[in-house]
Amino acid sequence: MLVTGTVIADAGTVIDDGAVVVEGDTIAAVGDAETLRETYPDHERRAFDLVAPGLVGGHVHSVQSLGRGIADDDALLDWLFEAVLPMEAAMDAEATRAAAELGYLECLESGTTTVVDHLSVNHAAEAFEAAIETGIRGRLGKVLMDKESPAGLLEDTDEALAESEALIEAYHGAAGGRVRYAVTPRFAVTCSEACLRGCRDLADRHDGVTIHTHASENEDEIETVEAATGRRNVHWLDEVGLTGPDVTLAHCVHTDESEREVLAETDTVVTHCPSSNMKLASGIAPIHDYLDRGITVALGNDGPPCNNTLDPFTEMRQASLLGKVDARDPTRLPAGTVLGMATENGARAAGFDRIGRLAPGYAADLIGITTERTRATPVHDPVSHLVYAAHGDDVVFTMVDGEVRYDGGEHVGVDAAAVRARATRHAERVVAEAGIGG
Amino acid sequence: MLVTGTVIADAGTVIDDGAVVVEGDTIAAVGDAETLRETYPDHERRAFDLVAPGLVGGHVHSVQSLGRGIADDDALLDWLFEAVLPMEAAMDAEATRAAAELGYLECLESGTTTVVDHLSVNHAAEAFEAAIETGIRGRLGKVLMDKESPAGLLEDTDEALAESEALIEAYHGAAGGRVRYAVTPRFAVTCSEACLRGCRDLADRHDGVTIHTHASENEDEIETVEAATGRRNVHWLDEVGLTGPDVTLAHCVHTDESEREVLAETDTVVTHCPSSNMKLASGIAPIHDYLDRGITVALGNDGPPCNNTLDPFTEMRQASLLGKVDARDPTRLPAGTVLGMATENGARAAGFDRIGRLAPGYAADLIGITTERTRATPVHDPVSHLVYAAHGDDVVFTMVDGEVRYDGGEHVGVDAAAVRARATRHAERVVAEAGIGG
Repeated sequence: MLVTGTVIADAGTVIDDGAVVVEGDTIAAVGDAETLRETYPDHERRAFDLVAPGLVGGHVHSVQSLGRGIADDDALLDWLFEAVLPMEAAMDAEATRAAAELGYLECLESGTTTVVDHLSVNHAAEAFEAAIETGIRGRLGKVLMDKESPAGLLEDTDEALAESEALIEAYHGAAGGRVRYAVTPRFAVTCSEACLRGCRDLADRHDGVTIHTHASENEDEIETVEAATGRRNVHWLDEVGLTGPDVTLAHCVHTDESEREVLAETDTVVTHCPSSNMKLASGIAPIHDYLDRGITVALGNDGPPCNNTLDPFTEMRQASLLGKVDARDPTRLPAGTVLGMATENGARAAGFDRIGRLAPGYAADLIGITTERTRATPVHDPVSHLVYAAHGDDVVFTMVDGEVRYDGGEHVGVDAAAVRARATRHAERVVAEAGIGG
Repeated sequence: MLVTGTVIADAGTVIDDGAVVVEGDTIAAVGDAETLRETYPDHERRAFDLVAPGLVGGHVHSVQSLGRGIADDDALLDWLFEAVLPMEAAMDAEATRAAAELGYLECLESGTTTVVDHLSVNHAAEAFEAAIETGIRGRLGKVLMDKESPAGLLEDTDEALAESEALIEAYHGAAGGRVRYAVTPRFAVTCSEACLRGCRDLADRHDGVTIHTHASENEDEIETVEAATGRRNVHWLDEVGLTGPDVTLAHCVHTDESEREVLAETDTVVTHCPSSNMKLASGIAPIHDYLDRGITVALGNDGPPCNNTLDPFTEMRQASLLGKVDARDPTRLPAGTVLGMATENGARAAGFDRIGRLAPGYAADLIGITTERTRATPVHDPVSHLVYAAHGDDVVFTMVDGEVRYDGGEHVGVDAAAVRARATRHAERVVAEAGIGG
């Protein structure tokens, strides 16, 4: 396929009248449209206003999709213990499958081609199957929780690790390597030292398996970890092996100077989730400082109960706007930096080598974007347009690994209306059974 | 017309299986759908997932629509003096008309039925004509600038006031009262004392004319006003007559205790513009304190060069998320409060008595919203759905003053594609002539 338009090959490279040539699952060429049309005269042709790399959701909870809007405006502990965890505990295999499908379809239709997905304790296989089926690229992991957890989620340490290993064997590298495994302890509050060390061991024993967890999202969490371990959270994670280039930590809102040094020295990836941190009032993550230290910062929408959207454009805009007002400097976190967080830095967070740019030899993960919208008129600069004015609804074409998954408002090979209906039915049942709200 | 759906009559009133009956330009009844179908059997019927009051943009600059994305990531003074003001100075009548039309169409298709619109110094009549033509409800005013202003915008005081008065006579109360006038000095930095006092005099001499200006958006502005007048900005505005129940002040980010007392005592309306304040790094307005004092706070998107969207849903979400993280309390600015800011408080900001709610005797300004979207699934609570998950693109039907203006993705009686093409052409010309950007 030869895809033409204004090609945003990466955050710093815009090609007017450009083209991307896809052969199989790989990008064969990127360049001037006229030249490439001559070189590849027989390729199927598609044209869009803007062509960009597929975006990377560096921290999502697809299985929480049934809980979109479930606990808006609640205090944090009510949100977690009275809504989100009871919902997860009440979800059976079918509900988990419906939730993951809903989440992945939302991602694919709004421009996210790769997710780093923190699943639930139960029925994680359903989400792997949903990823394989919907065609999204993903780094997924079953959650581990072996202490301080409610019934229905609390696990035996060895069983949690054994179940993770079984899932690694079943799914790591599935769909031609499009689906990969991250070991995902929930966070240090709900995981014993044996569990956390076991997670590192699992990752080390399986080639290409990474680690993804929450860290230092809010102050109560830090106090709890410090009371239990005598250490600040990032130091504790570092001690038990959960830092390093193969580790992605979501949030990192509250870190002190010494913890930031650890993150930088160990080359740990941070996923910034600004909308979630705002809505749950967790605080404002010190992103400027992380970037100044050379820490790789990706972007994540977190889960639908705390965002309430998986739209990556909303999150790029939010990261920039929050960063500017936090620094009291409108030049900080400019569009190119933020787009880089959602693409090349996201690739690091997801642990895929050849995604996040449109370049020869990279995976054919790309999106087509329309600017034929009143709210998208005029376009003075395509990169800043993507970050400040575009929205997930502007995505009209999504390709992952060379396969067209969304085209002209329709998912390819998936009945999205049926997925929505199933998700709504399961959401109503789960909320009723778990006694949430009301 | 009888419009059915889940009716959000106001922020505190949701009617499942509800209906709104419209007769002429007025709402005749609101209530249970089955009952109203029996009472009004012959009315044309329309059905939507959600039906809500049209939203109010409490501070916009429609004529800046050509400058969407014109100066992203610039420092504030560069943004204003090297991009926005030169653009306004370079705009002729046709460019102003195209910009206003583009802005109003964007509002109407994303759910805003009423704007409080701060126009430019020049060609303001074109925006009034555009409001009349597109069908939006508006409180519009020609900007006055009689000092510290660049060539092409600097005016003689008496001429600026005389031109304002001529526009009042021509347009205040136009389109059956749908279009009304606000006297709109730009801000205290660019207006002499004589100009500001003249604005109050103009409003007092014309029944129903109000005042709308910028105030205390950033710290440089406050220092400049204090150096010139010896007073904090709100005290200065109060002294020259620019406070009171007929005054809407945009921003009010930086106010001290004594200024907030003045705002409360004079019943002055504040329009909060969170996205603009974030993107320009102006700061975080003390909205919690304003609301605690009983000050009426509306919401505004400000102009496309500083937002870059006029979507009111984006702004509701932003107001809530920013308010929560600022207070470090996720229960603050809950969905109902924010929806009230965009509806009933907006009605105060716009100076229209009978808008902002769906109730008998109110103007028939309403919107129909679809939830048939992956990202809108499921809906647990319709009010929080509107604030946290919905987007302007979900609006499928917009009625203003009983007239259908947008229906199923199409503007009624307006060729939106032609407006977009005109706006793009003028934007390119204006940017080139004004020498903006690289």
